[in-house]
Amino acid sequence: MTTENWNDDARPTTSEGWTARAKEVAAVLATDAVERDQANRTPHAEVRLLKDSGLVTLLGPKEHGGAGESWETAYRVVREVAKGDGSIGQLLGYHYLWAWAARLVGTPEQIAAVEQLYTANNFFFGGAVNPRDDDLVIADEGDVLVFRGKKSFSTGSKVSDLTVLEGVLENSGEHVFAIVPSDQDGITYGDDWDNLGQRLTESGSVLVEDVRVPWSSAAGYVDKQFQALTYNTLNVPTIQLVFANFYLGIAQAALEAGLSYTAQHTRPWPYGGDNKESATEEFYVLDAYGDLQAKLWAAEALIDKANAQLSALLHAEREALTPEQRGEAAVLIAAAKQRIIDTGLEVSTRIFEVTGARATASSVGLDIYWRNLRTHSLHDPVAYKRVEVGRYALLGELPEPTWYT
Amino acid sequence: MTTENWNDDARPTTSEGWTARAKEVAAVLATDAVERDQANRTPHAEVRLLKDSGLVTLLGPKEHGGAGESWETAYRVVREVAKGDGSIGQLLGYHYLWAWAARLVGTPEQIAAVEQLYTANNFFFGGAVNPRDDDLVIADEGDVLVFRGKKSFSTGSKVSDLTVLEGVLENSGEHVFAIVPSDQDGITYGDDWDNLGQRLTESGSVLVEDVRVPWSSAAGYVDKQFQALTYNTLNVPTIQLVFANFYLGIAQAALEAGLSYTAQHTRPWPYGGDNKESATEEFYVLDAYGDLQAKLWAAEALIDKANAQLSALLHAEREALTPEQRGEAAVLIAAAKQRIIDTGLEVSTRIFEVTGARATASSVGLDIYWRNLRTHSLHDPVAYKRVEVGRYALLGELPEPTWYT
Amino acid sequence: MTTENWNDDARPTTSEGWTARAKEVAAVLATDAVERDQANRTPHAEVRLLKDSGLVTLLGPKEHGGAGESWETAYRVVREVAKGDGSIGQLLGYHYLWAWAARLVGTPEQIAAVEQLYTANNFFFGGAVNPRDDDLVIADEGDVLVFRGKKSFSTGSKVSDLTVLEGVLENSGEHVFAIVPSDQDGITYGDDWDNLGQRLTESGSVLVEDVRVPWSSAAGYVDKQFQALTYNTLNVPTIQLVFANFYLGIAQAALEAGLSYTAQHTRPWPYGGDNKESATEEFYVLDAYGDLQAKLWAAEALIDKANAQLSALLHAEREALTPEQRGEAAVLIAAAKQRIIDTGLEVSTRIFEVTGARATASSVGLDIYWRNLRTHSLHDPVAYKRVEVGRYALLGELPEPTWYT
Amino acid sequence: MTTENWNDDARPTTSEGWTARAKEVAAVLATDAVERDQANRTPHAEVRLLKDSGLVTLLGPKEHGGAGESWETAYRVVREVAKGDGSIGQLLGYHYLWAWAARLVGTPEQIAAVEQLYTANNFFFGGAVNPRDDDLVIADEGDVLVFRGKKSFSTGSKVSDLTVLEGVLENSGEHVFAIVPSDQDGITYGDDWDNLGQRLTESGSVLVEDVRVPWSSAAGYVDKQFQALTYNTLNVPTIQLVFANFYLGIAQAALEAGLSYTAQHTRPWPYGGDNKESATEEFYVLDAYGDLQAKLWAAEALIDKANAQLSALLHAEREALTPEQRGEAAVLIAAAKQRIIDTGLEVSTRIFEVTGARATASSVGLDIYWRNLRTHSLHDPVAYKRVEVGRYALLGELPEPTWYT
Repeated sequence: MTTENWNDDARPTTSEGWTARAKEVAAVLATDAVERDQANRTPHAEVRLLKDSGLVTLLGPKEHGGAGESWETAYRVVREVAKGDGSIGQLLGYHYLWAWAARLVGTPEQIAAVEQLYTANNFFFGGAVNPRDDDLVIADEGDVLVFRGKKSFSTGSKVSDLTVLEGVLENSGEHVFAIVPSDQDGITYGDDWDNLGQRLTESGSVLVEDVRVPWSSAAGYVDKQFQALTYNTLNVPTIQLVFANFYLGIAQAALEAGLSYTAQHTRPWPYGGDNKESATEEFYVLDAYGDLQAKLWAAEALIDKANAQLSALLHAEREALTPEQRGEAAVLIAAAKQRIIDTGLEVSTRIFEVTGARATASSVGLDIYWRNLRTHSLHDPVAYKRVEVGRYALLGELPEPTWYT
Repeated sequence: MTTENWNDDARPTTSEGWTARAKEVAAVLATDAVERDQANRTPHAEVRLLKDSGLVTLLGPKEHGGAGESWETAYRVVREVAKGDGSIGQLLGYHYLWAWAARLVGTPEQIAAVEQLYTANNFFFGGAVNPRDDDLVIADEGDVLVFRGKKSFSTGSKVSDLTVLEGVLENSGEHVFAIVPSDQDGITYGDDWDNLGQRLTESGSVLVEDVRVPWSSAAGYVDKQFQALTYNTLNVPTIQLVFANFYLGIAQAALEAGLSYTAQHTRPWPYGGDNKESATEEFYVLDAYGDLQAKLWAAEALIDKANAQLSALLHAEREALTPEQRGEAAVLIAAAKQRIIDTGLEVSTRIFEVTGARATASSVGLDIYWRNLRTHSLHDPVAYKRVEVGRYALLGELPEPTWYT
Repeated sequence: MTTENWNDDARPTTSEGWTARAKEVAAVLATDAVERDQANRTPHAEVRLLKDSGLVTLLGPKEHGGAGESWETAYRVVREVAKGDGSIGQLLGYHYLWAWAARLVGTPEQIAAVEQLYTANNFFFGGAVNPRDDDLVIADEGDVLVFRGKKSFSTGSKVSDLTVLEGVLENSGEHVFAIVPSDQDGITYGDDWDNLGQRLTESGSVLVEDVRVPWSSAAGYVDKQFQALTYNTLNVPTIQLVFANFYLGIAQAALEAGLSYTAQHTRPWPYGGDNKESATEEFYVLDAYGDLQAKLWAAEALIDKANAQLSALLHAEREALTPEQRGEAAVLIAAAKQRIIDTGLEVSTRIFEVTGARATASSVGLDIYWRNLRTHSLHDPVAYKRVEVGRYALLGELPEPTWYT
Repeated sequence: MTTENWNDDARPTTSEGWTARAKEVAAVLATDAVERDQANRTPHAEVRLLKDSGLVTLLGPKEHGGAGESWETAYRVVREVAKGDGSIGQLLGYHYLWAWAARLVGTPEQIAAVEQLYTANNFFFGGAVNPRDDDLVIADEGDVLVFRGKKSFSTGSKVSDLTVLEGVLENSGEHVFAIVPSDQDGITYGDDWDNLGQRLTESGSVLVEDVRVPWSSAAGYVDKQFQALTYNTLNVPTIQLVFANFYLGIAQAALEAGLSYTAQHTRPWPYGGDNKESATEEFYVLDAYGDLQAKLWAAEALIDKANAQLSALLHAEREALTPEQRGEAAVLIAAAKQRIIDTGLEVSTRIFEVTGARATASSVGLDIYWRNLRTHSLHDPVAYKRVEVGRYALLGELPEPTWYT
């Protein structure tokens, strides 16, 4: 696998082509995913790879050099990249959300400006928006807004060109999103992301000091008034479905790694009556893999359905979106996320039972899938996702838009 | 709900229309499904209802008065009818398979003749084909074949107009399918179907004595030679997916029955700290329903995918079907079946935990879903379905066509 | 198996002997448990059998002809009888609780009187104490208390000699237990117990009209003042552990029925490569039974531990019992109940997968275990039992004594 | 916690005392278990701690300074030590087996000699006996046996004083066990144990070159003839139950770590209706911990039962042991092992859901339990343990003694 032929003339022009491109990226990443995970280094080269592949501007307008693809394609691409490296799949998925932030919240002028900026420059996005911390505080200094504060988690910001900030105006209490350059004096990275999984996502803390943004960059504000749309609230379903897709990619990679190891290395059990020449003749091995594969296909089918449904809403006219459409998509996504968390954890735990004891060698690295899934699937309690779906099933109630629903 | 407006002028003309028609049928059946189940009477009225609704000729050619719909629609219709009454959903699904038997195995002339016969007459099919019994024995008497033997199970034959027989020629050992009138002296019903669930399917034993069939009716035979196609072997995937669809309908009905009971009748637990006014405020109730709904949606999404994939194969040119296409569809269906069996049994057991003790009254009849699922899901061992999928995942091997794979 | 040798000379004299006697009772009950369940007749003969066996006075003082056995033996006996018939196991377990009610709440004089009365007469107890209904109302007419009201469930009362009533004094709001003759004009049985399982427990409603009880029979009252002890609150752990024991008996019977059916009747699957001569050679059959057996043994071990622990408390000096001892026993019992509910439902559902399709015949009756477990395990929400154990694990908090904890 | 008071005068004299001593050892180990695990250093200090604590000679004869305790105590001690550090619990458990090897296989003279040797010197045992490798080859040079070969795994040998070797005589094919000094030229350690879990067990490969052993040390041989007893075959149940006990210790430690983290650090979810001040008020948190605690108690109760049963056999007269007793103990242990593997993996995965996202920090190290369990529980396929129990339940067949059953 080389990336030599990724010149501009060979850009994919179809959704299938971009999926194939994502597989190429995944293949490159997979070759040393375990080593890079252990090293826990800042993923500059990996982001470079994403840029070179063209995937960074997948959703960008064609007139500025983007692929003009749909979110349905973007979700599939995130999944494929996550198969090669769960961390990089997450970084790319988060980038797509931030790259879409202007569309979610901004004015038409802001949308045009942001999309041109990032697409033409092949810029990568990060964010500093963890809602469980206190908001950043924003001082209104007339034409300029000044952001100050600290966030515990800021995925990707350190390796990005642009960072999405979120804060609350100290006078009015209103929330403001703005996009700022990542490399500036006002932003200091804590470099403190050393966690069980998704280790290459640079999700450490960030300190924001006197980051100045013109009022005109306050997303969705016109004359200091926010122009609210239901569409604004698609941010949470959009990112939750990013989660589901990279979880799926990680789980699929886990299953594939297990299958490959078993087929190549696992010995048959020396007892049990038959003259088994290979572990692939073991009933329990076939039984377990069939169970895991079927469960994973079911989760995939549900995620594919959610991808199509949400993608249609994201690409339709912003003003047309109803709270019912938004709510029903959110519930479906909450269900999809539950299924892939349960299934992914089961797959990444049980593969060991069908690969055997020697597959626990650190050099094999078969635990990376469980670690990655276990870590990020705690983003918000899955119990509340069940309750969200249960409330809809039982009472027909749609989730009220919050930072998590 | 009345069926008064089911005259010919009001026939549905779209897939959605037929789905709506199926929902009407289900609503009629649901009103007394529990009572009819307990009575265990022969479902003449229910088959009449299916005929009146137009669903019996859903797959029949338009020129003979059929709806000319696809298998994808048929699967959805089976699912909807099964929501009202699992037994009747099964009967209808089996009918669709038998009605398609000529296409699966027959010559073009036989196909034309059978489809005209059953569509123009609104005939209902049954079958006597259980492969775990000995085959019927067929004597070749020159122009005529004579079937003799016994089958332990013969779903629907007693309430049908036409029955599909399967047997083996005593001289050559070759298998022959033929369609015969159900009401004839040569067929005697054991009336011995008294089982835990799917009680209205008339799946009892049948004795076949000197049933005479012209050689010209031996499906797929020309000059006493069988014309084999891979397409012939779609019978097993087709019926296995019928299973998955009526299991899904039963499981969905279970969940809906639970949800409805909880919302209307279940009292909040008097302990636990909050002043709960309704069981719908109980965290554990919302949590459980959210979990069950998400699992059911995942199974549904996988079944929908299999329905589309197999339907496309069933309606494509018979000669074009490759063993790979057939095999991949079979594996996907094996996975779908696993998921709905597991999920359906979990749903139909756990709904009681969120409806409460009084929901065990016989008058509520909330156990019918577990009984129906538990009974039919034993048709063939789900462990072998897991192995089938596992062998494909691990080795890329497709299942060899048999009576069960 | 005959009961001819159950004369007084052959009374067991050890715990093991009484367990063996219970097995004999179970064997008699098992011969027609399915038929009696379907008939749903009042279990007069079954209670007669319990009386003849000597089990009714198992806990009664030896000086009055009782066996003077411990609760540990009683729990084992309940379990064994439930193996033969879950309903009768429940009736016997409830009887033991009611027979102990005087010890739990009464004065020393009341204890002596009640134990003599029921032991010498071989009387059987029922109760009308469902706490989720309104309490019976008690009028204080000087020397006499008059009970009035309605209870939705009154297990065993109809087939009993003595019934435990519970009500609340209309003037003071205090609770009073009293033991009254079951066969009296003041008690009318609704004969409305027609539920999914535990069908022979006569758990229907009861109407109480002007049932008069001397103040001296108000359990635990001296001069109309209640003498409270922590020991009084052992009623709930004691009956909850009765539940766990008859659930275990039902689950063990389910497994044994499955094992027996598979060994005798189940055919090997005709596919799968090996020349299997019996279903007992199927890997998936051995795997499933091993899993179920291991789970059941674990639940049994935990219940045995709880039995020993609670029995010691029940037989120690009443005044010595501390709230901590009571609370720790209650938590352990809550855990034991959870485990046997989960395990029992799994066993009673999955046995079908290893017996096969023909085991669904009504004549086999293999569903009785699931129905019995499913019905009674809804007595109170298992989710709250989990929370009870969780609160203890997380915070060290013991459950406050209520009607359910 | 200090170990200063572990002088000889303060030696425990009861089983409870030794359990308390083991808890002290565990507390010392727990303080830096995560750091030591990451460092992956040879556990010389840890073995020193075991020796200082007196636990190494727990099973040794009192006349030589041992504690003369039972296996039931030893199992409990292994469990307690494993709570502090799973690796060291494993090392100690393996040591107990090797220390018992002379009793299992040896002659009375050999038993006396070995027990004196190791007890008087406080020697620690390791072994090189992995049966899935080729056996070591033994040349018979008259009075001396010479061992040669390679083993992939040799738990603890590198940090031990004595190593148990197993090999096969090249002329007769008979198996021979012998105890040799660990620190000798003939034994070279591969230092290649770098695996997912149980990282401090020094389970790497070992090369055996010309290790010479007098024939008199060939365990159980008299005049070059082996004196076989059923008791010899207790080695496998004994070590399998060692496994179950340290798995249980690891799982209990996981639950305790989760509980402690949640109680101290986890924040309530900011949504969900109630004004929750602590995560300990979350229904889902209490529900999950209650479920996990109940499951763990059930596994513990089953293991305790197996410990008592096997300990009794191990301490009874060797000649008295019947194959039935041995087989029934083996089946019970197979069941216990299944339960703690399933339960332990569930506990160590689900604790994260109730501790939350920040508990994935590497500094918390909450993954060590899953890694330890996942690694060692692959020692032999749990599916075959299920089959072993299933075969007993279904057919009454006891497992034939092998290296794994």
